[in-house]
Amino acid sequence: MRIVDIIEKKKKGLPNTQEEIQYLIKSLIEGTVPDYQVSAWLMAVYFKGLSKEETVWLTDEMVKSGDTIDFGCLADSIVDKHSTGGVGDKVTITLIPLLAAAGVPIAKLSGRGLGHTGGTIDKLESIPGFNTGLTVEELIEQVKKINVAIGAQTKSLTPADGKLYALRDVTATVDSMPLIAASIVSKKIASGAKNIILDVKYGSGAFMKTPEDAISLSKLMVNVGKKLNRSITAVITSMEEPLGRAVGNALEIIESIEFLKGKITAGDVADLTYSFAAIALMQLGLYNDESSAIEFLKGLINNGKAIEKLRELIVAQGGEPDIIENYDKFDLPEFKVECKAKKSGFVQKIDAYKIAYACKLLGAGRDKKTDPIDYSVGIYLNKKSGEPVNNGDILYTIYSNDEEKTKLAQRYCEEAFSISKDKTVNNNMIYKIINAEED
Amino acid sequence: MRIVDIIEKKKKGLPNTQEEIQYLIKSLIEGTVPDYQVSAWLMAVYFKGLSKEETVWLTDEMVKSGDTIDFGCLADSIVDKHSTGGVGDKVTITLIPLLAAAGVPIAKLSGRGLGHTGGTIDKLESIPGFNTGLTVEELIEQVKKINVAIGAQTKSLTPADGKLYALRDVTATVDSMPLIAASIVSKKIASGAKNIILDVKYGSGAFMKTPEDAISLSKLMVNVGKKLNRSITAVITSMEEPLGRAVGNALEIIESIEFLKGKITAGDVADLTYSFAAIALMQLGLYNDESSAIEFLKGLINNGKAIEKLRELIVAQGGEPDIIENYDKFDLPEFKVECKAKKSGFVQKIDAYKIAYACKLLGAGRDKKTDPIDYSVGIYLNKKSGEPVNNGDILYTIYSNDEEKTKLAQRYCEEAFSISKDKTVNNNMIYKIINAEED
Repeated sequence: MRIVDIIEKKKKGLPNTQEEIQYLIKSLIEGTVPDYQVSAWLMAVYFKGLSKEETVWLTDEMVKSGDTIDFGCLADSIVDKHSTGGVGDKVTITLIPLLAAAGVPIAKLSGRGLGHTGGTIDKLESIPGFNTGLTVEELIEQVKKINVAIGAQTKSLTPADGKLYALRDVTATVDSMPLIAASIVSKKIASGAKNIILDVKYGSGAFMKTPEDAISLSKLMVNVGKKLNRSITAVITSMEEPLGRAVGNALEIIESIEFLKGKITAGDVADLTYSFAAIALMQLGLYNDESSAIEFLKGLINNGKAIEKLRELIVAQGGEPDIIENYDKFDLPEFKVECKAKKSGFVQKIDAYKIAYACKLLGAGRDKKTDPIDYSVGIYLNKKSGEPVNNGDILYTIYSNDEEKTKLAQRYCEEAFSISKDKTVNNNMIYKIINAEED
Repeated sequence: MRIVDIIEKKKKGLPNTQEEIQYLIKSLIEGTVPDYQVSAWLMAVYFKGLSKEETVWLTDEMVKSGDTIDFGCLADSIVDKHSTGGVGDKVTITLIPLLAAAGVPIAKLSGRGLGHTGGTIDKLESIPGFNTGLTVEELIEQVKKINVAIGAQTKSLTPADGKLYALRDVTATVDSMPLIAASIVSKKIASGAKNIILDVKYGSGAFMKTPEDAISLSKLMVNVGKKLNRSITAVITSMEEPLGRAVGNALEIIESIEFLKGKITAGDVADLTYSFAAIALMQLGLYNDESSAIEFLKGLINNGKAIEKLRELIVAQGGEPDIIENYDKFDLPEFKVECKAKKSGFVQKIDAYKIAYACKLLGAGRDKKTDPIDYSVGIYLNKKSGEPVNNGDILYTIYSNDEEKTKLAQRYCEEAFSISKDKTVNNNMIYKIINAEED
């Protein structure tokens, strides 16, 4: 078997065989195929795609390329949730203590994430002392003990995905549906959970710009997951504007705490958290209908069990639990600039990408994995879409450690907000739920 | 400027700027761009192409990437001829002594060539003692002295093309029109000749399978050549069946000698040699019409000046000139197997690819540049298309050094020949001549 023939077939739009994909990934891991051949294959895949079968084979090979986590008898009931990434997306942080409080074991390995704002791991690390460097054994032990654990993904899982992603990143081949699907699903499968919930975002702040693209990706991922014997649901959600009001690492943890304390009862963060948690309960067969599942979940917020579970999680992973009561325990930024509306009306739209870009300017994100992150900075949206605004009302607040950067960030935020006289009707956050295998 | 952005633009079908192409090729030569980015760009070019302008820029950068030969005052009158490669193609070997005898200086640098049969350099090296390892200075000196010189291409010319080709070869990106055009034309331009004649072949034994593809490639190359101030003509010729009767290194030299001695007066080799030589004479303004040019050229064959020029060339490059009179001076093969027709009729077709493959089996070609070549082996076509055959006539002769390989080669030759009752009309060898710049 010659790699050049594998590339040639793909280039011509012919399917690669399972043996060819196995050989390619095996050679990648063993270092016997040069990167220039892999990147040529990736570009051919960008143009010619992969069939559903090829995507399953690729995913399977990526899973087999490294360690896999074995939760043993726990595996069947354990839940893992993944978001394709959005601005202000803290739903993993709200969801996992809630589900754990509901008696559902949840284990999550998260990437550190490149982008304009930090990933879930970065957000959690804004809690002083919080340790995300769990070994697999520690992760499993902690789930057994308190139902919940979250760690940074280690290199030993899906190394083939790591290598492929590093190549895709520098060869303009990131935006290929089957490659994205294989990457996401392989990491979830290697992480050991049998029940997977995927939050697939579309919109200006998401990787997928249209719901149609998000649907295609979701169908692909659900199909791959089911073929590899996982219970998997993809929820397609809007990312036209930031999720919740806080964007930035510590700010998002604070907003999550507020939700778990029962202080945020409506809005996008609450809607998505309850929906995902209810889907998990139904997927596990614990509830048959969404409304009774949500009623049960709301009870866990109201009786304090959810926030208590977050405290347990923070304590278990070495963090400072006092941040739950006292937000001043977070690293605080130097400046807090309240920016006011210059006209009255209704917020029509808040461009998620521009807000994210402003946060990046402030230092909340990174370009390279080794770049430092400023946990304290970010933007708080005092007004969200559909809300009335009077001239002079605080529209958003910038948290920053640099005056120059603040000004620049403000310019982007200014552009992000659209205010008009007409009240807008907010669309549903959830566009579609996909959990059936398609042929 | 980031390479990943250059790739991204090409991937999206947007044109790269001259600066981007300069940066890419400069980085390639300096080794500051990793091969995996270059191969991703190449695959994107395969799918999205290059505009005429981009092709000119790429060619120009490839020329500038290394040394260029300067023939000084000789440059304007000097001719270079290049063939895209075909089975049994010995027209460079017949053409250069003929043109040199006509008073036209001709300098040629040839690649060693990978493929089923050897390249021009390999063929010439079947002449005992013939040295193709001329330095540029030696090449120029020899042209000044005897009007003709031929050498193996050295690495110092168009190193960017060398690097790109090596990558294309292993990443299934060889068959891209603009990349082929830039590769061929850059080598010709760096070789210093102002007058370029390109033989662009199509058919079963050629890289371009259809005349349409050959036309596209020719137009592209003529455009690039003219834009870079060369006088350039592309001649599109058929390669449906082997050119001439001999395929194999020494065998082809012998057939060339026979032509230059005036013993082969008709057929494809004679037609093409006279046509190319006439085009060269007209391109230089020495003749206005083809027929009087060809009359003049035929005189050089008949008065012995052409074969005398070949002798001068052989002597100048250290070869054994006695091979001209005595073919036994070539390295002789062990076996000579005459294969007979099993039915009567007319030869309908001889598949060039299958004959080439049979020659490869016998050892006439190579896969890797370091593979040895057996100069003595090959196939002689006793019958060509359109010729009558009687059951029992010798159809072809295999020259070989291995009994097993002979049997295998015979099987392919058997398949290559089609014989039927109807006499076929041979198509013109020359399909089209392209020498006007197109927009």
